[in-house]
Amino acid sequence: MPPARADHASRREDVSAAVWQVLAEHGFGGLTLRAVATAMGASTGLVTHYFAGKRELIAHALDILETRTTHRPRRAVPAPGLPALRTHVLNILPLTPDAAAMNRIWLGSWDVALSDPDLFAAQAARYERIRESLRECVADAQELGQLPAGEPDHVASTVLSFTHGLVVQALFDPARFTAQRQTELTDGFLATLAVGR
Amino acid sequence: MPPARADHASRREDVSAAVWQVLAEHGFGGLTLRAVATAMGASTGLVTHYFAGKRELIAHALDILETRTTHRPRRAVPAPGLPALRTHVLNILPLTPDAAAMNRIWLGSWDVALSDPDLFAAQAARYERIRESLRECVADAQELGQLPAGEPDHVASTVLSFTHGLVVQALFDPARFTAQRQTELTDGFLATLAVGR
Repeated sequence: MPPARADHASRREDVSAAVWQVLAEHGFGGLTLRAVATAMGASTGLVTHYFAGKRELIAHALDILETRTTHRPRRAVPAPGLPALRTHVLNILPLTPDAAAMNRIWLGSWDVALSDPDLFAAQAARYERIRESLRECVADAQELGQLPAGEPDHVASTVLSFTHGLVVQALFDPARFTAQRQTELTDGFLATLAVGR
Repeated sequence: MPPARADHASRREDVSAAVWQVLAEHGFGGLTLRAVATAMGASTGLVTHYFAGKRELIAHALDILETRTTHRPRRAVPAPGLPALRTHVLNILPLTPDAAAMNRIWLGSWDVALSDPDLFAAQAARYERIRESLRECVADAQELGQLPAGEPDHVASTVLSFTHGLVVQALFDPARFTAQRQTELTDGFLATLAVGR
């Protein structure tokens, strides 16, 4: 029997929380209707009221990921140019347990996204939007004399490369890549970019 | 009926080729006994002679990935120090269709590896081995006066960050990140590290 409408919204939040928990622990490979039901302490039947199948479940997982990423706590940008660039990078890195869980789920989503044309396009567009933000910071930093002249898009792509790759290393080796070490590596990298200005 | 022993080795190669094809097209999320059977034009029953289930199939997929990565064609190191560092980076990047397929499968494997303690440890050890190779190049480059003094491990981690992150961007946007652009970004990044020596 489908849940009553009044229960529906709060139940849907429970479902979303359970989906998130399954993803953080088992990744997309472990995301099944049964795993979500277990995480909720509910029956698989209840979960099927929300998702017809695996594809709908994955789509909902990606919606939650996008929403949580958009609304995640972020450091405020202290000043334009290089400080803003630094803040953008630190806001992506897994410096807290929550940020690590979110990055873990992003990494897990790549397997799915690389095989689905719509998700692939959405992901490509997402990275272009991030580079666009970084390009603005780079252009500001160049104008302010904080970075040497050069193609902002080139620098933005290099900064996003550094950031994504540090996420990967940090997720697979959190003991070696503590928040402090990630921050030091970021500051060292940005200082390198600034040399020669 | 299980295949005769004489057929077994060549059939096993067919199975491996089919597993690789499924991974390149559909990722780990699409890796099922049925998909492998379809790729081989065989029955699911035949594939179950080789793999008891999904877990064995994934383990085999990761074995193939490791073997193919080890034996992939690589550029020879032209000279120690910075040229060697550049070669290591280019040998990882998706500069050819084969290298792109391999990187696509590596990215896809992260979702599985992040949820399985053994695979996680293997992946962490793998990245530490890559950093070790990069550290040697960095130390040589510093001795040769090609890179400024500094902690080689710090530089190696930064170089691997750049490399992994460029792989991710290039896989999701191959039109924007052509082989030529990836190479230019790598050369620009390495030139930045060398400034101030």
